[in-house]
Amino acid sequence: MKMKEETLTKEIVYDGKIITVRSDTARTPEGDVVPREVVEHPGGVGIAMEDEEGKFFMVTQYRYAQECVTIEFPAGKKEYGEDPLTTAQREIIEETGYEGTDFVYLGKMFPTPAYDSEVVDFYYTKKGAYRGQHLDDDEYLNLSRMTLDEIIDGAVEGRIPDAKTMCMALLIQQMKLRK
Amino acid sequence: MKMKEETLTKEIVYDGKIITVRSDTARTPEGDVVPREVVEHPGGVGIAMEDEEGKFFMVTQYRYAQECVTIEFPAGKKEYGEDPLTTAQREIIEETGYEGTDFVYLGKMFPTPAYDSEVVDFYYTKKGAYRGQHLDDDEYLNLSRMTLDEIIDGAVEGRIPDAKTMCMALLIQQMKLRK
Repeated sequence: MKMKEETLTKEIVYDGKIITVRSDTARTPEGDVVPREVVEHPGGVGIAMEDEEGKFFMVTQYRYAQECVTIEFPAGKKEYGEDPLTTAQREIIEETGYEGTDFVYLGKMFPTPAYDSEVVDFYYTKKGAYRGQHLDDDEYLNLSRMTLDEIIDGAVEGRIPDAKTMCMALLIQQMKLRK
Repeated sequence: MKMKEETLTKEIVYDGKIITVRSDTARTPEGDVVPREVVEHPGGVGIAMEDEEGKFFMVTQYRYAQECVTIEFPAGKKEYGEDPLTTAQREIIEETGYEGTDFVYLGKMFPTPAYDSEVVDFYYTKKGAYRGQHLDDDEYLNLSRMTLDEIIDGAVEGRIPDAKTMCMALLIQQMKLRK
């Protein structure tokens, strides 16, 4: 069955710092003309870095859009067109101070396929040498370390609602089960 | 540690059909003034409906923002202020034709806390009586049924990148393990 929708008009309605927003119209395979709003984002990475005690580095930070503090796996935004492994290798040092070794690709996530083009690529890595934390000017966060079981408990109990962190927990669990 | 950021200015830069976009400035606890972009969304629900064979109803549809076809748990958008259980009870009938019985709240997800206010609430339910499918005018989808193991395999193998579907798979797995 043909499902693709053909773009008829494309209009940028907001061109911001992190996101660009489009208001398009499209033709469905049935021939209907429908409005389609799209948030464009360059994409990001999530990085699960495990230390020698089997604990993962976690980031606690204030999330302005959600008006609350969250606990998440370290993550970062790609430069447009950047290879996600390059982003992951840079961001894990910037957020934790430690470089990662033995990176393993875990998979990808569409956070909000209904209206957002963002794709997040996930990596697992082991803690390497200390290089020094280096945060962006508008980035403030606290580091902690948690076991995978603690992260899954947090998801189940509603203390870890971040999509990327829950998805990565499932993929790490499966990676370890299937070894 | 105080982490909350105080809103200084708030400007709606796009007021659309599904989303509203703001470009704000905020003051951090350290006293810095920073730009903050926010996509506002009324929130949604994801519904995992299990049938008498232990299979879950899944929706295959074209996702314009991702320019591809995805397979996902049924889902829907809340009316502003609507109780999410009400949304879930309505959407599962609209998308599958069947009403749900014995709804269980699984938890919530922030798809994109970096710049989006959307919260998705998750429900597990059992297949009830047939009421008839009723899709929105601009909604086109195909139904199928999958076991939880097939859904988790799809996540691991990259065939199911939808955030909500992966997160719900983790939460259903844990619900069944902890029974």
